[in-house]
Amino acid sequence: MKDLAYYNGKITPAAEMTVPAEDRAFYFGDGIYDVTTVHGGKCFALDDHAARFYGNAQKLHFDLGLSLEELKALCRSLCDKLDRDVPEAVLYFQASRGTAPRSHVFPEGVKANLFFTLKPASLKPIGQEVAAITVEDRRFEFCDIKTLNLLPNCMAAEEAKQAGAYEAIFHRGETVTEGSHSGVSILKDGRFITPPLSRFILPSVSRKHYIELATALGIRVEERTFTVEEMRGADEIMIMSSTAPLNRCMKIDGTSVGGRDPERIALFAKAYAEKITAETGAPAKLA
Amino acid sequence: MKDLAYYNGKITPAAEMTVPAEDRAFYFGDGIYDVTTVHGGKCFALDDHAARFYGNAQKLHFDLGLSLEELKALCRSLCDKLDRDVPEAVLYFQASRGTAPRSHVFPEGVKANLFFTLKPASLKPIGQEVAAITVEDRRFEFCDIKTLNLLPNCMAAEEAKQAGAYEAIFHRGETVTEGSHSGVSILKDGRFITPPLSRFILPSVSRKHYIELATALGIRVEERTFTVEEMRGADEIMIMSSTAPLNRCMKIDGTSVGGRDPERIALFAKAYAEKITAETGAPAKLA
Repeated sequence: MKDLAYYNGKITPAAEMTVPAEDRAFYFGDGIYDVTTVHGGKCFALDDHAARFYGNAQKLHFDLGLSLEELKALCRSLCDKLDRDVPEAVLYFQASRGTAPRSHVFPEGVKANLFFTLKPASLKPIGQEVAAITVEDRRFEFCDIKTLNLLPNCMAAEEAKQAGAYEAIFHRGETVTEGSHSGVSILKDGRFITPPLSRFILPSVSRKHYIELATALGIRVEERTFTVEEMRGADEIMIMSSTAPLNRCMKIDGTSVGGRDPERIALFAKAYAEKITAETGAPAKLA
Repeated sequence: MKDLAYYNGKITPAAEMTVPAEDRAFYFGDGIYDVTTVHGGKCFALDDHAARFYGNAQKLHFDLGLSLEELKALCRSLCDKLDRDVPEAVLYFQASRGTAPRSHVFPEGVKANLFFTLKPASLKPIGQEVAAITVEDRRFEFCDIKTLNLLPNCMAAEEAKQAGAYEAIFHRGETVTEGSHSGVSILKDGRFITPPLSRFILPSVSRKHYIELATALGIRVEERTFTVEEMRGADEIMIMSSTAPLNRCMKIDGTSVGGRDPERIALFAKAYAEKITAETGAPAKLA
């Protein structure tokens, strides 16, 4: 297939999939999701994403109705249905608490709904240069769970787009949290500085990878908060996500920033591309 | 029909309605909703609810694709399709930004999706006694918009249910905001005290009605914040929503509260029931 969607066993082209209106995702955003990339038909970092997805269902007190191994096998079986000549794709997976007449309290006796899409994508080259804006973080304090309550993220992403920027970087007061669909870290004096895990940021898979890569590359890691001011003065600002592992932020709110540690950016970009290739056997584009 | 759902012109029994998976309500909760009651086939306070709904779409920067008058006419036409012998029903209406492949930024060239359900209901008697719990308010700071991002509300409502309570009352630090699906006000020394409008609470239609009723009844109104402590010591705690206009809260976190101004509770309950009857011609149950 050119692209596909899966919903509780049914498979269709993505644009044709329909779901019950009373799926709680539709009424309440009462569910979770995860996203990873597929290279040459193989999922990248599926263990990390599937484990997070599984853990998030537990955090919201619902059962996915299949084991972690079954979840991963399902992801792989969907990849097998995609046309073989698709070099890169994005796998999106979502689960909601179930389908029931609308009521805030959790319905009894329902099963989780599983929804996937798998679509060809032209992934961003690793290390591409981007611009960002800053936006006050008015999101809820459940940002450690990858939920379907994403309206503030959408509004901030749109604000960035209107400003001609790639991403909106959230801050609570002076403290940087993360981007609207990315994590944010900085390089300063040779150190990789990334916000600590808390209820204000997602435990990002790429963040985990960068900590591992930094350690392997001999780059010192500091897990600590940093301010907007510190970010503006950093040697490099790294905007990281699963579909675009490394964006080098060169402009914030219209002012030039970063660009002062190209060597470590190149080291990280090369190491990330190699990690993708080592795991999937497929090439990954560098900027 | 016994009950019904409407989606962009299609009408089915509620449980049978399906929607495109790529409706942004399903991916992001990128939409709004409103709810009102229907008595003897007539919508109560439709002007208030439709105007709020209309305004909320504007706050989220999307166009409903129909005028306020057309929206109300659509609500009424759906009520006409319900079986004539249904004494009370709940009308739910929802709109999302549109249907498009998943991307946080707003899609271009799409139309809003309109979704309604109309279902028979046995409404709670006005003035019923209930219990509540208190829950730290970790929601986002867009609570003035009635959006589909309701996961924290669902989790708090479930926590209340597990505690044998009717509602969870949110507080930010010491300040009471609102319930998980209700507004909260108190009576103290003969005054009706209700939180001021802010980004932390919904501009509740029943709150608006109570302010009008209080004025008509000669009860002094104070729009100001109050603390959890002040609420616990109030003469009465009123939990108010469109589907259950007056719940008299007699217990909070397992401890008896309120119950010290039965006269004003009775005045409010009677006035609200009369307002429903005056507008719809149908009786409203008193506790």
